[in-house]
Amino acid sequence: MSNKITLTGIKPSGTPHIGNYLGMIRPALELAKEYQAFYFIADYHALTTVRDPETMSELTYDVAATWLALGLDPDQVVFYRQSDIPEVMELTWILACFTAKGLLNRAHAYKAAVDENVEKGLNPDQGINSGLFFYPALMAADIVLFDTDFVPVGLDQKQHIEITRDIVQAINSTYGDVLTMPEAVIREEVMTIPGLDGRKMSKSYDNVIPIFAPSNQLRKSVMRIVTDSRRPEDPKDPETDNVFAIYKHFAKPDDVARVEKGYIEGGLAYSQIKNELYELLEGKFGEARERYGQLMGDKTYLEQVLLQGAEKARKLSVPKISKVRSALGID
Amino acid sequence: MSNKITLTGIKPSGTPHIGNYLGMIRPALELAKEYQAFYFIADYHALTTVRDPETMSELTYDVAATWLALGLDPDQVVFYRQSDIPEVMELTWILACFTAKGLLNRAHAYKAAVDENVEKGLNPDQGINSGLFFYPALMAADIVLFDTDFVPVGLDQKQHIEITRDIVQAINSTYGDVLTMPEAVIREEVMTIPGLDGRKMSKSYDNVIPIFAPSNQLRKSVMRIVTDSRRPEDPKDPETDNVFAIYKHFAKPDDVARVEKGYIEGGLAYSQIKNELYELLEGKFGEARERYGQLMGDKTYLEQVLLQGAEKARKLSVPKISKVRSALGID
Repeated sequence: MSNKITLTGIKPSGTPHIGNYLGMIRPALELAKEYQAFYFIADYHALTTVRDPETMSELTYDVAATWLALGLDPDQVVFYRQSDIPEVMELTWILACFTAKGLLNRAHAYKAAVDENVEKGLNPDQGINSGLFFYPALMAADIVLFDTDFVPVGLDQKQHIEITRDIVQAINSTYGDVLTMPEAVIREEVMTIPGLDGRKMSKSYDNVIPIFAPSNQLRKSVMRIVTDSRRPEDPKDPETDNVFAIYKHFAKPDDVARVEKGYIEGGLAYSQIKNELYELLEGKFGEARERYGQLMGDKTYLEQVLLQGAEKARKLSVPKISKVRSALGID
Repeated sequence: MSNKITLTGIKPSGTPHIGNYLGMIRPALELAKEYQAFYFIADYHALTTVRDPETMSELTYDVAATWLALGLDPDQVVFYRQSDIPEVMELTWILACFTAKGLLNRAHAYKAAVDENVEKGLNPDQGINSGLFFYPALMAADIVLFDTDFVPVGLDQKQHIEITRDIVQAINSTYGDVLTMPEAVIREEVMTIPGLDGRKMSKSYDNVIPIFAPSNQLRKSVMRIVTDSRRPEDPKDPETDNVFAIYKHFAKPDDVARVEKGYIEGGLAYSQIKNELYELLEGKFGEARERYGQLMGDKTYLEQVLLQGAEKARKLSVPKISKVRSALGID
């Protein structure tokens, strides 16, 4: 196992789906076997949008239960809740003082919100809170507080790592070698998981297959995946079919090859492969669903896991903020 | 003594001058006799501009020594360093999530920096760091963390209190009565202390009379105050004269009346009133200067005073942030 540190923030956003699993959870769990992994629930990030205390609390536990149910080992991974680490917010302020405002103006998430306003003929900053605008500084603090070496991100998050690198550069060039320069590792795969309707699987499109849906609901979801109208005997295109695009991530290589051949040669009904996919998902997530349910019923245990994670994290974050403060002359 | 809480942030910015004393320090020391006063050294605010660790450290001690030398009683006032209260930075993030970005766009300090850039034909945000842009959220956190009832400010800071009030309104209307609504108390006087050249006394104009200058330098400063060319026997205008504008704040009422009469009737030389002013300042600040020198030579004591202040402050800030977090569902 490498000494290198990898870090991933998980924004609590409700029931996880297959896209989350394949795009983020599974690779993160794999990574944790090879590297020293820091995974955290970004509840203070969620505060930019979540305005209801019960939802906030529930969403947070939901992330914890999901990841634990899917196999995260809290003894191996430093698994914590962002808001349990006050050094993150302190470092956010420090980093802000070295973040060119122009960089934040150009950050994607903010720009997307502005574009949407402009399109509607509204004031560009209408309804945008400063938390959203300021978020790249929070993310930078999350990363550099633990001397993170690399951050696996989707393409849409690559820019945030670049902003982080700019900040690190600004501070290190003023105060010497205080912060570790992180690198982005792009997860290309994220972009390619289609939802029920063929668009990218996303809660905002309402086209997801939830991981922990009850068995009958899971089956219904899979049956609703949009296909073209080819009949069983027709040859089909594995490159463009939505069922196959999901199937191939869960089936064994032999089965993938078999089904691909069946598509190309014809004679394989979509309903048949949907059935196979359902069985695979049920096999894959059935037990985890049980564990998830148990964990969600035992908040005391979840709380204990998160607090232990925070304790481990603070063994590093407390001396780190102290080092940074000392470099700045604030001590 | 009232139970009401007043709070003042002191941005460390080097040797204090007569304008600081009359505009801020003296009124604050007076206020501390009547109200529960929280006074803090805004070192994390200073980080938006100060880039040298020794300067940062020295400026911070300078504020502590200055206020203690001038009579601040650390047993009566909660006197602390902003960076010793991590709850301030945590609350800053929280408040940011409820601060319309548009509010920050219109904040004076930021707008002034933008205007300067535009005038020079530069990119509006050129050289502006996010700390400056974000500062109103930090100031709001400083204020509401201690349930501050009122904040004495110069006219130029009034807008910041309005921003704070907007944020409090946003949070209380969502989560109930979580934060105390602060009020601004405008210190009109601040604007009227002229410097050596008749413009507002300010380090940026290089026209200040430093409080703790050695005796001979203090005399030289006073002698350099610009007057018109009226001869001793001429009548003079007490309304427009720079020497009198300072003198009247330090002299006894009887003396103020005598000198005013002398101005109007003629027969009083500017040099004579300058001498009187020098004697007054020397009498007022001579001892404090000694104490200031001793305090700056005893950083251990200063550190001890500030840490005791932080301890008192955290007795309030820790339960307060806990209350806020709980309201948000982050606990």
